[in-house]
Amino acid sequence: MAFQKINASIITIGDELLIGQTIDTNSAFIAQELNKIGVWVKRRVAVGDVYDDIWQALDEEKQHSQIIIITGGLGPTADDITKPLLCKYFGGKLIVDQNILKHIHYLFEKVYRRPGIMLESNLKQAEVPDVATILHNARGSAAGMLFTQEVNNEKRVFISLPGVPHEMKGLMTEEVIPILPTYFTMPVILHRTAFTSGQGESMLAESIKDYEAALPSHIKLAYLPAFGMVRLRLTSTGNNKEQMEKEINALFETLKTRVKEYLVTDEDDSMQVVIGKILKQKGKTMGTAESCTGGYIAHLITSIPGSSNYYNGSIVSYANDIKHRILNVSNDTLKANGAVSEETVVEMAKGALKELKVDFVIATSGIMGPDGGSEQKPVGTVWLAAASRDKVITKQLNLRFDRERNIRQTAHMALDFLRKFILTNS
Amino acid sequence: MAFQKINASIITIGDELLIGQTIDTNSAFIAQELNKIGVWVKRRVAVGDVYDDIWQALDEEKQHSQIIIITGGLGPTADDITKPLLCKYFGGKLIVDQNILKHIHYLFEKVYRRPGIMLESNLKQAEVPDVATILHNARGSAAGMLFTQEVNNEKRVFISLPGVPHEMKGLMTEEVIPILPTYFTMPVILHRTAFTSGQGESMLAESIKDYEAALPSHIKLAYLPAFGMVRLRLTSTGNNKEQMEKEINALFETLKTRVKEYLVTDEDDSMQVVIGKILKQKGKTMGTAESCTGGYIAHLITSIPGSSNYYNGSIVSYANDIKHRILNVSNDTLKANGAVSEETVVEMAKGALKELKVDFVIATSGIMGPDGGSEQKPVGTVWLAAASRDKVITKQLNLRFDRERNIRQTAHMALDFLRKFILTNS
Repeated sequence: MAFQKINASIITIGDELLIGQTIDTNSAFIAQELNKIGVWVKRRVAVGDVYDDIWQALDEEKQHSQIIIITGGLGPTADDITKPLLCKYFGGKLIVDQNILKHIHYLFEKVYRRPGIMLESNLKQAEVPDVATILHNARGSAAGMLFTQEVNNEKRVFISLPGVPHEMKGLMTEEVIPILPTYFTMPVILHRTAFTSGQGESMLAESIKDYEAALPSHIKLAYLPAFGMVRLRLTSTGNNKEQMEKEINALFETLKTRVKEYLVTDEDDSMQVVIGKILKQKGKTMGTAESCTGGYIAHLITSIPGSSNYYNGSIVSYANDIKHRILNVSNDTLKANGAVSEETVVEMAKGALKELKVDFVIATSGIMGPDGGSEQKPVGTVWLAAASRDKVITKQLNLRFDRERNIRQTAHMALDFLRKFILTNS
Repeated sequence: MAFQKINASIITIGDELLIGQTIDTNSAFIAQELNKIGVWVKRRVAVGDVYDDIWQALDEEKQHSQIIIITGGLGPTADDITKPLLCKYFGGKLIVDQNILKHIHYLFEKVYRRPGIMLESNLKQAEVPDVATILHNARGSAAGMLFTQEVNNEKRVFISLPGVPHEMKGLMTEEVIPILPTYFTMPVILHRTAFTSGQGESMLAESIKDYEAALPSHIKLAYLPAFGMVRLRLTSTGNNKEQMEKEINALFETLKTRVKEYLVTDEDDSMQVVIGKILKQKGKTMGTAESCTGGYIAHLITSIPGSSNYYNGSIVSYANDIKHRILNVSNDTLKANGAVSEETVVEMAKGALKELKVDFVIATSGIMGPDGGSEQKPVGTVWLAAASRDKVITKQLNLRFDRERNIRQTAHMALDFLRKFILTNS
């Protein structure tokens, strides 16, 4: 199969990335979007707000990739040097773009509603290199800019985007993705993802070794583990969509059969989306009673639009007094077994069922660390209870991560435990 | 001030970073740790599980930096090619390290408690290049490896770490940071951070323009905005610690005076840590009543160890029925004003005060999007109420982000609103 492979490099600019102040979520979004249209992100590079380092990164990345996406360095504060640099790099001069200027006035008057406080630094955002194709930033004042250059007689496209995530996202989906096919012929990329739980990465890999070895060279299998679950992703690259779909669908069916005992879903959904779909389909509701996860399960569920259709709420019973008064856990149970016990978590679940008036509840109680552990109940000891009006089941976890990871891992494993409970009890 | 500047490059390996499946949190942690000992992270590069791309990244980064930290690519699954590559790159051969082998057996028997399921791929993790200095991974089976090389007559140190975050973190703090000073003389780096709220990045920058311009060249000021707040960070680099401390402390005092009306704290703490410190100091407790933030505020607070000393819990009242039955919001109020209204959020706060038996409550109700907005109440409309037994105050927010960001922004602004309320009402 012959097709032109389009590589991209993502350059993120900003000292905050290099001192560890900011976690780079932009690159992941950009990579996902590029991937969908068949562009392979070959490299991601982060450099500081240093003129020579940015220049050098542009020089290097255009040797690696046809598309170079640059984010950051366009804000109004003094440490931003990217725009003049781009101007020089592509041999243009800065001019005031009247459309951008109008847009900035519009934003300050109508959207931010603070026309009085516009500064020179805000107005300067209307200045752009005259050699740039302007990409409209509907969500902010820093415009996107596209430049082209020939490198070894091949076309290179450079796109500069603001680093503010929601502005960058708008520009990527509304401007960058639609414009790229006018510069390059994209290959077709197809993904199929099987989401599994209950088996580790190594064991899964071992059990489908022969399947993986027999895949054609244009189809790759990736293992994507997260929170005790593993996504298996098949990716096919080519140029005949119809034929590729037939092929990958057949291979995906085989994969699903091979891992069927662990399969959560054959769509690329998160656990909270999977649970939402099951509840909506069954017309059931749920709630949560959280001690050690401290509201994180509620957050995961409510981060999904439309979750109010099946999610009523949570009692975050961090204090034992709340467990007792609101969830009706008896003081005898708390005294005899402690808050982190099977007995307590069962009473929490039963109490929440009644108090939240829902069909299903998941309850958590555990020791997340770094303090609070004992010999009998070390840090990482967690009890889960899943309950309906007819039944309660429990599970103990023994985690061995840091506090943050223990909380996340507990939340995801609790949702998976609840998912299985709902499927077998409704 | 003459001192040797030590640069580092971080290379992260793995297709999951390039398809946007995984957000790179490792690099931020590594950068923070290196920064503390005076190493400047000059570049961060991510490449896929592609032999030539990894090789090329090593070649390039050793031209940029003296220290090259490599993470990922050491797991037990088939797509890992990093270890043989490192072996070839540094001219060694793979040998079985008996200490690592013992450690793997120990992990499977005593920690994972599943001795029976050890695979060949797990045992292979004891194979390491004979030219590597082994760094002990107490938390997992993939050891860290250190290699040295001369480049243009200068020393280069390469360190390969597993990509699993909690294993990488353990190795960084317990092995990498202590061993680096045996290879390089580090400069002294000092940071001072002023955390501000209530003023945007541009306006802050404008108001201290002269201060920033007058800073000596070895002291930099960075603006680090997040969720409507801005951190101002001074960083001094040099080699005379005592003298540098005197100088940066004096400059920091001036900075604090210049921004005093917006100052949250002069320590590098998160808002949830700041609130915890205030409550502990005053011997007061708090709780939350969350509708639109769906448990995210509770999560932020309970992510801090020891928060059970001042945080009792949350009523996540996603359904109106919960607002009414548990928080005692009257049905008349809900009917007349809707769930997203000043009246409702005030009753939520009052109800939570009583129900959770706490000194302070923050309540939230809003429309996070993408659906649910109307002309009167567009997406991004949020009401906050902060309450004590004697007083309730409210605030309306008009956000304009996507759902995820609206939730996060609301949570952080709610905590800031509560912080100010506690400080002026106790």
